[in-house]
Amino acid sequence: MSFTLQQLSDLEEIRQLKSRYFRCIDTGNSAELATCFADDIVVDYRGGGYRLVVKGKADMVEFLASSFHSDIVAMHHGHTPEISFVDADTAKGTWYLEDRFIDPVRGEDTYGTSLYYDTYVRTADGWKLKHSEYDRVIELVSPIDPKIEVRSSMLSQTGRKPGERTDTTKWLEWFD
Amino acid sequence: MSFTLQQLSDLEEIRQLKSRYFRCIDTGNSAELATCFADDIVVDYRGGGYRLVVKGKADMVEFLASSFHSDIVAMHHGHTPEISFVDADTAKGTWYLEDRFIDPVRGEDTYGTSLYYDTYVRTADGWKLKHSEYDRVIELVSPIDPKIEVRSSMLSQTGRKPGERTDTTKWLEWFD
Amino acid sequence: MSFTLQQLSDLEEIRQLKSRYFRCIDTGNSAELATCFADDIVVDYRGGGYRLVVKGKADMVEFLASSFHSDIVAMHHGHTPEISFVDADTAKGTWYLEDRFIDPVRGEDTYGTSLYYDTYVRTADGWKLKHSEYDRVIELVSPIDPKIEVRSSMLSQTGRKPGERTDTTKWLEWFD
Repeated sequence: MSFTLQQLSDLEEIRQLKSRYFRCIDTGNSAELATCFADDIVVDYRGGGYRLVVKGKADMVEFLASSFHSDIVAMHHGHTPEISFVDADTAKGTWYLEDRFIDPVRGEDTYGTSLYYDTYVRTADGWKLKHSEYDRVIELVSPIDPKIEVRSSMLSQTGRKPGERTDTTKWLEWFD
Repeated sequence: MSFTLQQLSDLEEIRQLKSRYFRCIDTGNSAELATCFADDIVVDYRGGGYRLVVKGKADMVEFLASSFHSDIVAMHHGHTPEISFVDADTAKGTWYLEDRFIDPVRGEDTYGTSLYYDTYVRTADGWKLKHSEYDRVIELVSPIDPKIEVRSSMLSQTGRKPGERTDTTKWLEWFD
Repeated sequence: MSFTLQQLSDLEEIRQLKSRYFRCIDTGNSAELATCFADDIVVDYRGGGYRLVVKGKADMVEFLASSFHSDIVAMHHGHTPEISFVDADTAKGTWYLEDRFIDPVRGEDTYGTSLYYDTYVRTADGWKLKHSEYDRVIELVSPIDPKIEVRSSMLSQTGRKPGERTDTTKWLEWFD
């Protein structure tokens, strides 16, 4: 079996879609982030110490903008996409995440990897993320090392300030 | 020069093949891992403190399943593939690895990068990995930091338990 | 909109070009590194604690070879390329970098991520990097942990020895 020209073009667009998703989280770009999702997106992320369930584009953008806020040091890198087609307008994809999350509120430095299981749909406005789940592969949590100096964090400029954040506890369950 | 449609399709399949390889190691999925290799695969991985030589699919799966076992915290992420064709059914590829390996038996936390030099062959069952070498670019080894809490490690569920592991010393030479 | 066969082929070549760039930095391969750049390349990298401005291929190779020298432990991994075409022979691309830089001269261990904004041009000798900027997303700097043992660093073999290095301060401004 081989991919068609249309499929190869679609694979490129889907890879770039997911790439935008990661970039926009870490740069606090909610406007562009909203363009990544279908209106009825459903997300179920199962972390080591948490589970996140969000339904709908507006809530998803709200959750991300209020989680990756001005006090967070964040990195989300997506690797080795394995994308296949269900039909001409639907694709499934697995991505392997590496992420870092330094949260001075909880006093934790989290390093993790996850496997995403996504569904993408073609719309009049390009491919969109319609369903996304992940399972943690590893999650390592340490107290923040006081010897680390944060010389740069883009979210400190672009992320939501304390008064602008929504309470995310309605979407997020913590296990510890 | 340009890639043909067939070659672009093959490149996508080869990228997904190597992606499966990394994912299956870290999730302890020996059955799917076996589908990545040609029967006569030869592997030669030259690490900072070790050298691994394995010949044949059965040994390779056995080595990986017994190395990345239930007590190991593992991450293998492959980056920036540079793949070219030797002929219509043979390709060569370079991948840039980032890996983490926390081994409570040795008491070591290893962080490294490597450059893979692979050969892939087309078979009736799709592209397979036929030959793979790597050289370490960097390898950093620390004692495991007792402040790190492992909140999640998929291999603790899916990896081989102590009684199920093969002795890997026949394939692996340690230098320290 | 869809990508054409020619564009998909060009995207593959551009991805492999940037992949060579990262690989050659970390392996001290100045000769191959030079093949990545247009003669009139302009670079502007804005780090957390530094800013780098370099003009011209010869200076760029000289800067990289003298910065990533035999005493440096370096890792540059590029992720999630978002590449689009300006015209048939010009493309723009965003890459998301993860890098590590252990410098015993400064006594610092730097971990960072950046977003590259590149311009690529088609030449008779293939695609070349013509313009490249980056902004830091995060930059974390620690004193080098004495518990880390460097078991392998390819630059210790391939990188420039002390007497062979150019003073890079003409290109690099440090803020700390």
